[in-house]
Amino acid sequence: MFEAAETGQRLSKQDFETREAELRLALVNAQYDLQSSDAPMIVLISGDDRPGASAVLNRFHEWMDGRYLVTRAFGPLTEAERLRPAPWRFWNAMPARGRVALFLGGWAQSPLAARLEGRMDREGFDRAVDLFNRFEEAFRADGGELVKLWIHLPKAEHEKRLAKASKGRGESWRVDDVDWRICDTYDEMAPVAEELVERSAVGSPWHLVEATDPRFRDVYSAERVLAGLESVLSREEREPEPSGPTPISVPEPSVLDGVDLTRTLDPDEYKKELAKQQRRLAKLAARAAEAEMRVILVFEGWDAAGKGGAIRRLTRALDARDVDLVPIAAPSEEERRYHYLWRFWQRVPRAGRMVIFDRSWYGRVLVERVEGFAREDEWRRAYAEINEFERELVDDGSIVLKFWLHIDRDEQLRRFRDRERTPYKKYKITDEDYRNRERWDAYVAAVHDMVERTSTSTAPWHLVAANDKRAARVEVIDTVCETLKHALKKKPKRRT
Amino acid sequence: MFEAAETGQRLSKQDFETREAELRLALVNAQYDLQSSDAPMIVLISGDDRPGASAVLNRFHEWMDGRYLVTRAFGPLTEAERLRPAPWRFWNAMPARGRVALFLGGWAQSPLAARLEGRMDREGFDRAVDLFNRFEEAFRADGGELVKLWIHLPKAEHEKRLAKASKGRGESWRVDDVDWRICDTYDEMAPVAEELVERSAVGSPWHLVEATDPRFRDVYSAERVLAGLESVLSREEREPEPSGPTPISVPEPSVLDGVDLTRTLDPDEYKKELAKQQRRLAKLAARAAEAEMRVILVFEGWDAAGKGGAIRRLTRALDARDVDLVPIAAPSEEERRYHYLWRFWQRVPRAGRMVIFDRSWYGRVLVERVEGFAREDEWRRAYAEINEFERELVDDGSIVLKFWLHIDRDEQLRRFRDRERTPYKKYKITDEDYRNRERWDAYVAAVHDMVERTSTSTAPWHLVAANDKRAARVEVIDTVCETLKHALKKKPKRRT
Repeated sequence: MFEAAETGQRLSKQDFETREAELRLALVNAQYDLQSSDAPMIVLISGDDRPGASAVLNRFHEWMDGRYLVTRAFGPLTEAERLRPAPWRFWNAMPARGRVALFLGGWAQSPLAARLEGRMDREGFDRAVDLFNRFEEAFRADGGELVKLWIHLPKAEHEKRLAKASKGRGESWRVDDVDWRICDTYDEMAPVAEELVERSAVGSPWHLVEATDPRFRDVYSAERVLAGLESVLSREEREPEPSGPTPISVPEPSVLDGVDLTRTLDPDEYKKELAKQQRRLAKLAARAAEAEMRVILVFEGWDAAGKGGAIRRLTRALDARDVDLVPIAAPSEEERRYHYLWRFWQRVPRAGRMVIFDRSWYGRVLVERVEGFAREDEWRRAYAEINEFERELVDDGSIVLKFWLHIDRDEQLRRFRDRERTPYKKYKITDEDYRNRERWDAYVAAVHDMVERTSTSTAPWHLVAANDKRAARVEVIDTVCETLKHALKKKPKRRT
Repeated sequence: MFEAAETGQRLSKQDFETREAELRLALVNAQYDLQSSDAPMIVLISGDDRPGASAVLNRFHEWMDGRYLVTRAFGPLTEAERLRPAPWRFWNAMPARGRVALFLGGWAQSPLAARLEGRMDREGFDRAVDLFNRFEEAFRADGGELVKLWIHLPKAEHEKRLAKASKGRGESWRVDDVDWRICDTYDEMAPVAEELVERSAVGSPWHLVEATDPRFRDVYSAERVLAGLESVLSREEREPEPSGPTPISVPEPSVLDGVDLTRTLDPDEYKKELAKQQRRLAKLAARAAEAEMRVILVFEGWDAAGKGGAIRRLTRALDARDVDLVPIAAPSEEERRYHYLWRFWQRVPRAGRMVIFDRSWYGRVLVERVEGFAREDEWRRAYAEINEFERELVDDGSIVLKFWLHIDRDEQLRRFRDRERTPYKKYKITDEDYRNRERWDAYVAAVHDMVERTSTSTAPWHLVAANDKRAARVEVIDTVCETLKHALKKKPKRRT
């Protein structure tokens, strides 16, 4: 495959200067046009020529408007990165709509180096390639454009450079570099690199860039980026506004019909049971933290179903230092400039911590679907994206537990009225709550689809009967305890 | 001192319930009012009663609107935190205007624990206290309100709880906790804690909260927070809009008059010298990285003075993976919701990395001063705040190097015209550049004051004659090299 980039292509100084002037103008203009579109772009600069890739990156800083470029060089994992799922650092570095991010090394470099050094087996390599294909897929599905450059230097050129460097000259000062070490193992490297390039081109192909002649290398790379920009800009305009609420057919019976709302727990029993479960939780949570288990609790449910109360009964049993409490509201303007999962990836805690989401990424298939804030293709795609997200969390040693707190319409109305009568709870009731109430059936349909499509064996939904708050609170804590107990028995290992 | 919180204060269940209802209503209302003000608030919950502090935090989540609370529990340092100056994690956690942040442990807990365990000497303790006083000062100067709660449990109560816990009962499950270990060393702890409380009350006093009776503890804590909120809300309205440009008197002569703009470097000499300095820089930068030195380069200068070109000559000598390039534009709406230094603290890299700021925090005393975007009291205060910021960086083992690229008015005009004639450089010239040009004298005055007040022995300004681009580029790299060489000779140690 690399033969395609070993044809000795060169560019004369004069040709270079002509192309340079044209390219700079076109790149900067396209960059500006991109800003008023809603597409983000990633330029992934990787390859077997480390100084070459670095030089290409610098060239983009010279030829484009650096004020609107984001650059991330992916080196060895930091502690924060080691303690999170592999795609975490890429999600965090994802550019906002209208922006170009330059990723140096990116997801291609580490698996290549790790496999060559025997730190990664075949299975790990396959998994890494697969993960990054999925990351790219999510990025593209959200309108993102990827340009992938593989900067390739033929073997003979590598050898020349090595000889030069050993005399203390030339642009390669760190030939001893771990992640990009090539020269002494070129023949071993080439087939693995080819395989990587081939297998990570599922959605977006790699452009092989011959690096023998720096002028050709830079012009060719810039032309690929320009083509990428032009391809984004020539896309058909996407439907600018969400399409409004989709017609709903309510499933009969829905999953919620199976929830027994008549169950109650009397106050005395509740007190005893709650204290018991809280003590149990405290101990299990401490053991989970010791085992470096990441615990992710998701609370969804009808307005006034008692999410807040259930969460507080949980946190009271825990040390506030060990738990992140994340209330989720509508995305801010800033957050809307990213893939909708971006803000949730940012809140993934390190291994060994617990995080409680009060509402979550399921907003995409609940409120955003029902209210028409997301287009139909967007929320339909979300089920698979969410399953993928949660699978990555679970594969990285997380417990993912999801609760839907269920009450009926009458109970909801009672609670609204009750809140209105309690001065310090009044703020919890707004006109919006009454509006949401009118869409009850649409939400039932959305909840049904959500449970049907995202209750997986690794991250199941728990539908909690919450007409009786006491029973619901005890059930939630008990469920968390049971899950932790079971998981601790298996003592799962984090893969990374 | 702690006697004040050992008077056995209690609250009956009935009194508690009355106060609870009043407090919840008042807290939530005040919290909403705060949102439309421009003041951020930090509630620091610390003390010698760890489970008590944790319970107080949970109580605030119950009594306030959790959607607008930010909670941060400060435990042992993460790797990312260890590799940065001590105040970094607090700056990062700073709440936005209108928001309340709950800090558990905060800056009080670690020095206390470290000193008790002999991990920190007297000097380190003094320095820690001093740093946090300064952090608080910066926060308050920017309109922030601090409420500091020291949750105190008398010795006898500590002993009772320990006895209970050893039987496996009670709310304290982790009495073996390092940062808050108290019981076995109460008599040792008390005087150090008292000293800490006394010395860290320079600007904002601590409220000593007796924790013997949880009802009293929670109500008293909430009353202190409510008082803090009310004090913010009753403040006189600050001048809502910046006051417009301040009249300027141009110093005669100014520091810029001392820059010799006639110096030139001929093209051949330049080529040779540039290559030489770049090779030198590559080696020195690698050694600085090995020595865990953080290198911070700041570029300021007239429009079209050649900042971008000088920066590119620098980065070409470096591995793109080792350098963060940070172009600074006007703060976004999001960024304006924080102290102006917040966004720069976020970009402080870990030890061993280099970061290049293309424009910087000096915008506060340059463009924001000249254009009236900052009030006079704000930019006047900024000199001391900036010196403090840079001192914290230098004390943490950073090199801070600041360049002002100086050209004269005629040269600037020549370059504007030249850019307008070059198609791919045209985007670099806007009407704003011509407007800024008209304020030349005001900028001279601002630069003069800036150099006078912020060119410190540890972070000096370098005024670079840049009418000749070649000479300027070589001088910049040479200055970086000389500084690195000098610093590497001294082999400074990071204090933390």
